[in-house]
Amino acid sequence: MAFQKVKREEDYSKWYNNLVANADLAEHSAVRGCMVIKPYGYAIWEKMQQQLDKMFKETGHSNAYFPLFVPKSLFEAEEKNAEGFAKECAIVTHYRLKNDPEQKGKLMVDPEARLEEELIIRPTSEAIIWNTYKNWIQSYRDLPLLINQWANVVRWEMRTRLFLRTAEFLWQEGHTAHSTRQEAIEESERMLDVYADFAEKFMAVPVIKGLKTANERFAGAEETYCIEGMMQDGKALQMGTSHFLGQNFAKAFEVKFATKEGGQEYVWATSWGVSTRLMGALIMAHSDDDGLVLPPKLAPIQVVIVPIYKGEEELNNISLRVKPLVEELKLAGISVKFDDRDTFRSGWKFAEYELKGVPVRLAMGPRDLQNNTVEIARRDTREKKTISSDGLVKYVINLLDEIQDNIYARAYTFQQENIKPASSWDEFVQILDEGGFAQAHWDGSSETEQKIKDMTKATIRCIPLNNAREEGKCILTGNPSKEKVLFARAY
Amino acid sequence: MAFQKVKREEDYSKWYNNLVANADLAEHSAVRGCMVIKPYGYAIWEKMQQQLDKMFKETGHSNAYFPLFVPKSLFEAEEKNAEGFAKECAIVTHYRLKNDPEQKGKLMVDPEARLEEELIIRPTSEAIIWNTYKNWIQSYRDLPLLINQWANVVRWEMRTRLFLRTAEFLWQEGHTAHSTRQEAIEESERMLDVYADFAEKFMAVPVIKGLKTANERFAGAEETYCIEGMMQDGKALQMGTSHFLGQNFAKAFEVKFATKEGGQEYVWATSWGVSTRLMGALIMAHSDDDGLVLPPKLAPIQVVIVPIYKGEEELNNISLRVKPLVEELKLAGISVKFDDRDTFRSGWKFAEYELKGVPVRLAMGPRDLQNNTVEIARRDTREKKTISSDGLVKYVINLLDEIQDNIYARAYTFQQENIKPASSWDEFVQILDEGGFAQAHWDGSSETEQKIKDMTKATIRCIPLNNAREEGKCILTGNPSKEKVLFARAY
Repeated sequence: MAFQKVKREEDYSKWYNNLVANADLAEHSAVRGCMVIKPYGYAIWEKMQQQLDKMFKETGHSNAYFPLFVPKSLFEAEEKNAEGFAKECAIVTHYRLKNDPEQKGKLMVDPEARLEEELIIRPTSEAIIWNTYKNWIQSYRDLPLLINQWANVVRWEMRTRLFLRTAEFLWQEGHTAHSTRQEAIEESERMLDVYADFAEKFMAVPVIKGLKTANERFAGAEETYCIEGMMQDGKALQMGTSHFLGQNFAKAFEVKFATKEGGQEYVWATSWGVSTRLMGALIMAHSDDDGLVLPPKLAPIQVVIVPIYKGEEELNNISLRVKPLVEELKLAGISVKFDDRDTFRSGWKFAEYELKGVPVRLAMGPRDLQNNTVEIARRDTREKKTISSDGLVKYVINLLDEIQDNIYARAYTFQQENIKPASSWDEFVQILDEGGFAQAHWDGSSETEQKIKDMTKATIRCIPLNNAREEGKCILTGNPSKEKVLFARAY
Repeated sequence: MAFQKVKREEDYSKWYNNLVANADLAEHSAVRGCMVIKPYGYAIWEKMQQQLDKMFKETGHSNAYFPLFVPKSLFEAEEKNAEGFAKECAIVTHYRLKNDPEQKGKLMVDPEARLEEELIIRPTSEAIIWNTYKNWIQSYRDLPLLINQWANVVRWEMRTRLFLRTAEFLWQEGHTAHSTRQEAIEESERMLDVYADFAEKFMAVPVIKGLKTANERFAGAEETYCIEGMMQDGKALQMGTSHFLGQNFAKAFEVKFATKEGGQEYVWATSWGVSTRLMGALIMAHSDDDGLVLPPKLAPIQVVIVPIYKGEEELNNISLRVKPLVEELKLAGISVKFDDRDTFRSGWKFAEYELKGVPVRLAMGPRDLQNNTVEIARRDTREKKTISSDGLVKYVINLLDEIQDNIYARAYTFQQENIKPASSWDEFVQILDEGGFAQAHWDGSSETEQKIKDMTKATIRCIPLNNAREEGKCILTGNPSKEKVLFARAY
C-alpha cells in the first residue's frame, strides 16, 4: 500500500483526494473528467441506491429507462433548460469509424457516416422524457405519473474532482406529472423530505432544507428545493435537489390532459435527483486523518474479525471459535468479514480496516480463547475494550446503532456550531474565512448575490424552509430585507 | 386499451411487437433505434438483475463502474475487437453547443469545441477496462480480479427491434483477469453455467450450451461460449455469451504480472454478458395469443386479487376479507396486488392481468364470502377452480412453484421436439422451414458455414458442449466431419 497520509488541517483538499485513492473508492480514468468507481466505492454506492430505491417505491414511484441520447431538436425545445446545459454537453455527430488510409491499424471517423441530426448525451432527461410523456398522458386518469430512472449522465465540466464533479456521473432522476400545481409542489416537497431523511438517517449527515435563489435554480424550474450539508472544513455541499417545474416542459412539449370537467390543461411537473456526489459528502462529512468513517447503515463491511496468532495451530483454534460467530452475525443481518489471510500481519489489517472505515473491529487471540473474550474496537471513537463472547451478537447490534447515532450527533453538533448569524460585513467575511455558514440579510437581488460571490466566493446556499421572518438590512447593500439567508463557500 | 390482437400463427413477428406494446413493456423513442423501457417492462428487468447480481456475487464477483466513453486510441488498441465494432459505434466529436446565429432559439454544434481525440461510446468495455486493469495488476497476488459492471452500451445497428436489437441497450458485462489460461477457461465456463442456471431456473427457458464457430465468435476472443434458447416459432435466440479472451487484451494494453516464481507474464482474461435481450427471450418463449405468460420467479406481480361485486357495500365486505389475505401473502414473500379500482369492470381486469402475464388470479364475490371460498385461476394453463380460503397461502405457494415448473416443462418439451437430426440437404431445409434446430454435420470451414447461411438464412448456433463425437459427412459439401453442430435461423 503506497499510502501518503495527509492531515485534514494541513490540506483538506489533498486529504480528500488521497483518501478517495487510498481507500480504493475511485480513480481518474483515461477519459478526461470521467472516473472509475472501484469495487469498494461502488459497494457503498449500491447500499445508497438500494435504500433510496426502497424509499422511492414506498412513496409510489416506479422505475423506467429512457434513452441516453436527446436529439438536438428536442434538447432545445425548453429554452431555459437548453441554455443552461448547452455549454457543457457531449455531442454525437457520427455513427461509424473506418480504417485510416494514411495510418495502418488506425481508425478514423467516417465522414460519410454523419448523423442528420446531432444527438446530445443527456445532461438530464427532462426533454426526452417529456417528449415521451406526451404520448402517455391524455386524461386526468393517467395522472399522477410517478417515474424514476437510475442512469448515467454527462456534463462537460472543465474542472473535475472525483465524486464531487465529474464529466460523467451516476444518478437517479425522478420525473413526475400532475394535474394540479398544488399536487406538483407537494411532490417536490415530499421528495425533498425523502432526501433529507436519507441524508440524516442513513448517511448520518444533518442537512438544511431550503429553496434556491433564482441564480442557483435549475434551468427550466420555477422553484428548486435543496438539501445542503456541511463538510468538516465548514464548506457546503449541495446533496440533492427537487424541482417544481411548473408547466414549462408541458408547454414546450405540448403535454395536455383532459380534466374531469372536460377541459384541456397543461400538465404540472417535478423532477428531483441525487448522484454519486453523495459519495463525496459521505466521505468528507465523517472521515478522519486515518481514513474513512462510515455510518454502519451504509458500510459494505460492518464488522471485521481479525485473528491474532502465531502459527497455524493458533489460527486454526481461533478460526474454530470465529466461524460460528460469523454465522450468527450474518443471521442477524450484519455484514461481516473474517480476515484470516496469512499474507498480511494483524497490524497492517488494523490500519487497512481503519482506512476503509469499517465501523466495528473484533480481534481474537489465544488469551481471548482461554478467557472466552474478544477485543472490540469502534472506528468512530477509536475506543477499545475486551468483552465476553457471550451475548456478543446483541452487543454488536447495539453498538452499530450507537455508532450510527454518534456519527450523526457529532456531525450535527459541528454543523450547529458553525452556522452563525452575521450582523456586519466584517463578521460575515470572518465566518466564511473560519469555515462555516453565515446567516445574513440579503436584499433579494441577483446583482447583490453575484457581487457577494465575486467578493467572497460565497453563494447563497438556500433560503431555509420555515425561516424566521425578521426585518433587517442587506449585509452588503444595507437595503431592506425580510429574512436571513444562508451563505457559504461550496463544493 | 387500444389493443390490436394478433395470433402467433398468423404473424409471429407482429404478435411479438404488439405484445411488447400492449403489455406496456417498451416502446420506440424519438431517437432512432433506442427504446423506452416502460415501468412494467423495467420491473421485470429489475427482477432479472437482482437475481443475476446475487449469482455473480455468490461466485465471488464485485461490481464497479467504468466510463461510458472510450478514447479512439484505446478503442483501436485491440485490433480485432476494434474491427468488429468500428462500423456500428456512436462517436462524440464535440463538447459544446452554441446559439445558431441564423435561427433564433435554435442551437448548433460549436465548431470551436471540437475534441482533440474523438470518444467512442462503449459498445463493450474491454478496452477501457483493460487500460484500467494495467494499473491494478502488478503481481499474482492481485489475481484473480473478478469484476462486473451494470451499464448501458451503444451499437449502431441498422435494423432494430424492441429488446432484441436496439442501438442502446442495458446489460451487465463481467471482466475478469487470471494468472493462468486454465483458470480463465474455468471462469468462462463457470459464468456460462450461471447464465444457463438463470435461464432455466428463473426464466424457465431451457438452453443449449455450446461454443460459437470462428464466424460467430466475439471480436477479440479466442473462444466464445453461448447459451441458445428456442422461441415458439422454432427460431434461436442467443441469450448470453461468455468469452475466453486469452491474452489478447493483456497484450494490447501491456498488462503483465509478476509470477510467484519471479517471472513476468501476460494476464489471461474473460468477459461475459447478458442484456435486455433476455426480455425478448422471456416474452417469446412462453407467451400466448392473450398476452404474456411470466414465470412466477420473475413476475413483478405474482398474484392479483379481483373483487366481483355490485355496489359499495359488497365491495367493502369483500375488501374486509381480502385485506388480511393480502398481508398473509406478503408475509410469505409473495408480491400481490388487490385491484379494487371501481373505474374498471372485472372482465376488463381479467383480460388486463392475462395480458400482463400475472401467474395467479384470485377472484372473490359475494357467494365466496358466504362459502368461505375463492376462485383461483392460473395463467399458464387457464385452469380455474373454486377452493376454500383456509390454507390459501400454502396453496398459492405450491401453485406458484407448480406454474414455474410447468412453464419450464412445456418449453423443454417444445425444444426437444424441435431439435432434429438432418441426414440430407432436403431434410435439413425442411427442419429449418418447419421451424426448429437442425443437427447436422459440417466440414468445419467458415466458407461452408457462410454458404449455408446464404442459402438458408440459418447459422451455426453452436457446437454443443459434450457433443457426441460421430463421424459423418458435411450436409452441404459432403466433406468429412467429426461431429454434428446445431443450425437454426436466429433472432
